[in-house]
Amino acid sequence: MKKIAILGSTGSIGTQSLDLLENNSDFQIDYLCADRNYKLLYSQILKFKPKYACINDTNSYNELKKINISSTKIISGTVDVLDFIKSRKVDLAINSIVGISGLKPTLNIIESGTALLALANKESLVMAGEIVMQKAKNMNVSILPIDSEHSAIWQCLHGEKQSDLKKIILTASGGPFRKLSKEQFKNITIKEALNHPNWDMGNKITIDSATMMNKGFEVIETKWLFNIDGEDVDILVHPQSIVHSMVEFQDTSIKAQLGYPDMKIPINYALNYPSHSKLDLPSLDLSKISELTFENPDLDKFRCIKLAYDSMESGGTSTSVLNIANDISVDLFLNKKISFIDIPEIIELCIEKHDYINNPSLEDILGQIDWVKNYINELDTNN
Amino acid sequence: MKKIAILGSTGSIGTQSLDLLENNSDFQIDYLCADRNYKLLYSQILKFKPKYACINDTNSYNELKKINISSTKIISGTVDVLDFIKSRKVDLAINSIVGISGLKPTLNIIESGTALLALANKESLVMAGEIVMQKAKNMNVSILPIDSEHSAIWQCLHGEKQSDLKKIILTASGGPFRKLSKEQFKNITIKEALNHPNWDMGNKITIDSATMMNKGFEVIETKWLFNIDGEDVDILVHPQSIVHSMVEFQDTSIKAQLGYPDMKIPINYALNYPSHSKLDLPSLDLSKISELTFENPDLDKFRCIKLAYDSMESGGTSTSVLNIANDISVDLFLNKKISFIDIPEIIELCIEKHDYINNPSLEDILGQIDWVKNYINELDTNN
Repeated sequence: MKKIAILGSTGSIGTQSLDLLENNSDFQIDYLCADRNYKLLYSQILKFKPKYACINDTNSYNELKKINISSTKIISGTVDVLDFIKSRKVDLAINSIVGISGLKPTLNIIESGTALLALANKESLVMAGEIVMQKAKNMNVSILPIDSEHSAIWQCLHGEKQSDLKKIILTASGGPFRKLSKEQFKNITIKEALNHPNWDMGNKITIDSATMMNKGFEVIETKWLFNIDGEDVDILVHPQSIVHSMVEFQDTSIKAQLGYPDMKIPINYALNYPSHSKLDLPSLDLSKISELTFENPDLDKFRCIKLAYDSMESGGTSTSVLNIANDISVDLFLNKKISFIDIPEIIELCIEKHDYINNPSLEDILGQIDWVKNYINELDTNN
Repeated sequence: MKKIAILGSTGSIGTQSLDLLENNSDFQIDYLCADRNYKLLYSQILKFKPKYACINDTNSYNELKKINISSTKIISGTVDVLDFIKSRKVDLAINSIVGISGLKPTLNIIESGTALLALANKESLVMAGEIVMQKAKNMNVSILPIDSEHSAIWQCLHGEKQSDLKKIILTASGGPFRKLSKEQFKNITIKEALNHPNWDMGNKITIDSATMMNKGFEVIETKWLFNIDGEDVDILVHPQSIVHSMVEFQDTSIKAQLGYPDMKIPINYALNYPSHSKLDLPSLDLSKISELTFENPDLDKFRCIKLAYDSMESGGTSTSVLNIANDISVDLFLNKKISFIDIPEIIELCIEKHDYINNPSLEDILGQIDWVKNYINELDTNN
């Protein structure tokens, strides 16, 4: 029986992972981590009886303490939780924490001696890809991707030689604004931006999908996960979200992975790799879908894509600033402080103006958070 | 350096294989076999300097003898050629002989102790799949498929476990008559039937593509090559011929192999398996193709598909009779003796009327050739 940890257990990937693990006797839940949703965490504790449960937020911890949970030891507070993660070795840890706060847990899982890290936290690689991959290599940890695109690539590369890899083609739905003119981008409302055609996700990532920054982040993740030059990672818009990504080999043969958009498939694959363990889901019926379409992304409209490629090429702290500035800008947009087209403007300014550091340490990277916050704050004040 | 033999060296697959081998120092051509095209065989001998060259037709042999070829020993006559194949062990043999006459060479290659048989001859498996696969297993010979569909499946299954395989989806262009009504099928001319939308092939196989019997044969080949129940092999019409086939796993994840229609890709893969050795071909640009469409085949119009599934299910000599009766019917159609819709009629009658043998020997199978010939002849006389 494999010991498993789920970080971000009350989020979308976390709950779906637990659904898959519910009647699976191959796995034993060793620990769960949540940020603040103590009610859901409590019901997960009751159902899965983990040895430990972590909750970052101390107020939520106090609520949780009121309930008598004898079989599960509770850890709380960000610092203690991080220390616990570093000290606790399991067989497989899923990091599905959303946002920059997922980076330190990623590094601590790697340091814990846990052999398999199933990674759904994009920020770990966008913020600190070099540090994460280097540490994983040193500690002999395999990083298993959990999102539809990188799982698709991983599946297509299974059994193949690195030297045969020519190009990776990341598919993108194109978001809700694929057909708008650049002129119309000026008037995009929050409601329009939150209306994603194929995937039901949180607000932040839905906006990232609307700006296509999400795809830019995925290009950076692809570079790190599959050890490929960024320029050999292409984006192809495919509005139906059926082909989850593709790999081209040196003989021009392309392998693609297809399926209905359902996160259970990539999660299940990461849990059971290299097996495609049975899932009770409907088989993809391409005759019903009838048509799959493809087009190149419009880099003029979706400026975030170009920002991601450019920051990936300059390396160093650039992708960290890209990530941080995007988080803050999207938050400002969701709070009606800026318009949709301000998002790439602000990010570009931040990348341009920040004190670039080559081969940054973790502290260098995290140090950018305050700088970007202050810088954007000043921009706001000056306007 | 691997010793390689090419049977059917003057045909389409044979010449393309030699093109790929021309500047490849990993391979040394051990022998070439042709039926009667001695002029082309002669130029191949000059260029590739094989140790042996076989030519079935004795008249062509006499022409070839007039030329002094000191470095290559020539073998001629069907019987001697078959004996030679059985006695000559190489590292990899490509059997790209077209038609039923490719079956005995397949069996003889297997008996020769040659470890790898790259098989482009469909008839070997449609006529005698059980015998061929059993002999290959006994002799520890790997059969590597050379056609776009089975190569696609093979590529998609590489590195995967047999128990994870749920379904194979063979794609089909649908041929030139996909959009005709059943009523219009009555008036199909030879010229119309020879006009294939995507692939440039010989007349016989182009008609098989128009009736979709070609796809029926491929279903039977798939069953044998990949050890899967016939009912788990589906046909999906995909007019653009870009997705060459797909595999569905137990988790409903689908892997597909894509590329421009070019036989060099599957040949190159069989030559270099499991490497996708570099080919100087243009990368597939899906944004240019823009749209891939899929539909279920119309079994009412394309009766040959149903005949193939039914004969596969009844097994024994049924698929052999399917193959033989199709060969003769297509020949009659090409010679304006019967109409397009007579082809499945005649095949169905043959399968129905023949003396069914379960677990047939090679002699039982080959014995059907004369029976079917005579039976169809009598049908003709009686009409």
